[in-house]
Amino acid sequence: MEALHVYDTTLRDGAQQEGLNLSVSDKLAIAGLLDDLGVDFIEGGWPGANPKDTEFFERAQTELHLQHATLAAFGATRRAGGSAAADPQVQALLDSNASVVCLVAKSHTGHVERALRTTLEENLAMVRDTVSHLVGQGRRVFLDCEHFFDGWHLDRDYALSVVRTAHEAGAEVVVLCDTNGGMLPHQVEEVVADVIASTGARVGAHCHNDTGCAAANSVAAVRAGATHVQGTVNGYGERTGNADLVTVAANLQFKLDMHVIEPEAFARAMHIAHAISEVTNVPAYSRQPYVGASAFAHKAGLHASALKVDPDLYQHMDPALVGNGMRTLVSDMAGRASIELKAREAGLDLTGHPQVVASVLAEVKDLELRGWTFDAADATVELMLREALEPGCTDFFEVESWRVITDSSGEGDATSEATVKLRAGGARLIATGEGNGPVNALDHALRDALTRAYPEIEKIELIDFRVRILDASHGTDAVTRVLIETSDGETSWDTIGVAGSILAASWRALTDGIVYGLLRQGVSRR
Amino acid sequence: MEALHVYDTTLRDGAQQEGLNLSVSDKLAIAGLLDDLGVDFIEGGWPGANPKDTEFFERAQTELHLQHATLAAFGATRRAGGSAAADPQVQALLDSNASVVCLVAKSHTGHVERALRTTLEENLAMVRDTVSHLVGQGRRVFLDCEHFFDGWHLDRDYALSVVRTAHEAGAEVVVLCDTNGGMLPHQVEEVVADVIASTGARVGAHCHNDTGCAAANSVAAVRAGATHVQGTVNGYGERTGNADLVTVAANLQFKLDMHVIEPEAFARAMHIAHAISEVTNVPAYSRQPYVGASAFAHKAGLHASALKVDPDLYQHMDPALVGNGMRTLVSDMAGRASIELKAREAGLDLTGHPQVVASVLAEVKDLELRGWTFDAADATVELMLREALEPGCTDFFEVESWRVITDSSGEGDATSEATVKLRAGGARLIATGEGNGPVNALDHALRDALTRAYPEIEKIELIDFRVRILDASHGTDAVTRVLIETSDGETSWDTIGVAGSILAASWRALTDGIVYGLLRQGVSRR
Repeated sequence: MEALHVYDTTLRDGAQQEGLNLSVSDKLAIAGLLDDLGVDFIEGGWPGANPKDTEFFERAQTELHLQHATLAAFGATRRAGGSAAADPQVQALLDSNASVVCLVAKSHTGHVERALRTTLEENLAMVRDTVSHLVGQGRRVFLDCEHFFDGWHLDRDYALSVVRTAHEAGAEVVVLCDTNGGMLPHQVEEVVADVIASTGARVGAHCHNDTGCAAANSVAAVRAGATHVQGTVNGYGERTGNADLVTVAANLQFKLDMHVIEPEAFARAMHIAHAISEVTNVPAYSRQPYVGASAFAHKAGLHASALKVDPDLYQHMDPALVGNGMRTLVSDMAGRASIELKAREAGLDLTGHPQVVASVLAEVKDLELRGWTFDAADATVELMLREALEPGCTDFFEVESWRVITDSSGEGDATSEATVKLRAGGARLIATGEGNGPVNALDHALRDALTRAYPEIEKIELIDFRVRILDASHGTDAVTRVLIETSDGETSWDTIGVAGSILAASWRALTDGIVYGLLRQGVSRR
Repeated sequence: MEALHVYDTTLRDGAQQEGLNLSVSDKLAIAGLLDDLGVDFIEGGWPGANPKDTEFFERAQTELHLQHATLAAFGATRRAGGSAAADPQVQALLDSNASVVCLVAKSHTGHVERALRTTLEENLAMVRDTVSHLVGQGRRVFLDCEHFFDGWHLDRDYALSVVRTAHEAGAEVVVLCDTNGGMLPHQVEEVVADVIASTGARVGAHCHNDTGCAAANSVAAVRAGATHVQGTVNGYGERTGNADLVTVAANLQFKLDMHVIEPEAFARAMHIAHAISEVTNVPAYSRQPYVGASAFAHKAGLHASALKVDPDLYQHMDPALVGNGMRTLVSDMAGRASIELKAREAGLDLTGHPQVVASVLAEVKDLELRGWTFDAADATVELMLREALEPGCTDFFEVESWRVITDSSGEGDATSEATVKLRAGGARLIATGEGNGPVNALDHALRDALTRAYPEIEKIELIDFRVRILDASHGTDAVTRVLIETSDGETSWDTIGVAGSILAASWRALTDGIVYGLLRQGVSRR
């Protein structure tokens, strides 16, 4: 069997995702990351179809230094009634200088007749002519058969004839695409096996996630004999997205014992997936298989003690293999074991401090009864542990008072002004901040006051803010829970505040977020 | 074959998700929505394990009026060395009055010996004793075999003996759990088929998404003979989450032609999934299969023209079957039909008013682009329709200005004071209100001022308040969306406000909530 091709189409099909828009520099940055991940092919785009993709292939020749991957250009078969040699779009594929060309072709009779509006015979001629022209020019050619599975169900003979035509014309791989994404694994398995048995072609699979089965369908295709899988990082793509290439590769490597990606590259998978989400500006999905922030996070207090002793009982693999790590969430079922695990994760040694575990546990339980939740606020738990180990170590400043005034003249928006009065570094710090919302104004004032004592907070930024009202039956008299995510540009952490007033809750989460950031930078109290 | 059980565990296993924390009121609200979705069983929690779940089962008996679903209580087999009849945790299951009990049991020898720390024989006795005790007390018993698939691979005979023991003791269904989520579909299929052939028990499946295959694994289990599937709405759950129950049901119903959920209930799936995400305050995932906002969204490109002529070529099913709709650009879900439907629900006759539909639709589209969402704010849409039909009919008062001041002296809570200036009934109304939070103070001041012109607002009360920050990448500079639920003691309604400031957004939702309540009471403008 040939070595499996791991073919990434993040830069082409992934970019079809709603809200995702990549510049040429973004694409070059992502291509470099994909190479680090160890994929075999990087589909860079469609040269000739839009100026951005043409520019990408131009710049890639000098700016992109791939260690492992091969760049592929995507394009279509020649126009109906023409010749491949005279087709400007086919010429643009050659001009891209990509050594691999992935051509899209129709294999579904309805699409040939109603979308492409040509005859079934001419469509085969387009495939034959374009593949052999590109092969004649020294290119490796892969053929994406659009809507293949639906086409096979509608007219198996015609679908197979497209595969045969491409294979005989010299296509190295014929890729069966579930373009509309409606297939289930047993259906994919049946079709892939039939195509291989009937045509002898090397077969690939390109799956979408419309039934939530993109990863399973890709694995089913490989089990049925496919030796080429296409997908995207983070499962980006139109509608519900494409197959998540890291999930597919991990399933093949760790569950079916195939060798797909070098282990040292696989251990960078989480980092690379997150780095790509920084480039695309699509927030990372915490529940993403293998590389999600929650993928190896355990909440159930039920088994926290067993978890500490025997983590293999509770995780399906070693998370380090994909660069992830096990995390324990401190929750309302928290016991000593989960506090100890949390401390270990934070690098704190609690040996010889049983009273620290007991006091933090008591504090957590007490606060949780009053609406605090610690499973999403690791940094707050860590601050509690540090304060219990070394009282006073988190007191970076003393709060004298703060005030926020919000005004509106009628139905429109409102403006807020906040004043904070603090003591730090031996001085009294007073500052006023404005904002479109009260928390925003408070954040500005707090930062302005603190910068004078701690210029290091410059790097620390509030990046997410979530509010939850607890005990809905009391309406606005209820308790408010605020979760804040703060970042220093390298990493981010979560803090929590709970109070009757949303502003008091926000104040607590804001100040903890800043203190945690200062501790992380090794800043001492002034 | 028995009719398939659709068994929802959002309220129990789903609540294990990082950052998800449900109050008893939240759980009751979600249970009502799950019933609307047409699931067969709703696992409400673990009575006796924590006070919240005990309270849920108590309140459910009077507050929850299920039309279709049966409530199930989750619990564990009795303690090692004891008897089921004397086990307080087993007694709590009986005391919950749930007619169905789902018991969790160990079926993996490593877990029996290393986590439960008892003998293999005693574990079987615990299963036998607990199941027969509960069956003897008239309960229907399902048994969740934790870590079953891993256990079967390690020691098939023992795993099967747990199933046989439960089956013989009277368990109606034995549920095979892929607790660590590491399975692939072909592995699930093999094990399910073996269990059915070897034991004759009725089998269910409980899958997690760690390999991205939860939906495919659930479908594979059903194809292998399972007649009970467990999952959660929106795939909530620990780590990567549980099987998404809507995806699984849709795959079975629309791809395998099984009858799983009534078609009219299925057509509410998208609305219900989104309404549940408003309760949990976990943002809806746009790429979610079937019900995601992007699930049937097509980026204009390659096939835009063909899409217009022949949409069936480009979608795997009719999105209306799950309450979703095809979108061709970045636009909203609202179409003429949904506006007309909302009007009909509100008892408004739009016949002869095509311009009202058009103008409200345009307003909805415009507002949705700016972060408003009308799925969970029916009352706001009704006010827009009423205002479009009869301009001025919702102007119960004129707002001159409002202001809120929040003060805190140090680290503790804060106090707020709000002043509102309005005109109504020919008078200028000025009032000041206090509160522990700024929205609370604003609500008190608004109510105090308005009572003078509209004493009828006495009955109207704010009962729920939810806040969501949109576009998290901008932190506190982002837009804030506030959803408010208001009640008159008989019924309740939802209104929305979106603004840069949380207080301006709250003001809009608060005032709309009161106006809607006055209109409902038949009060005229003064």
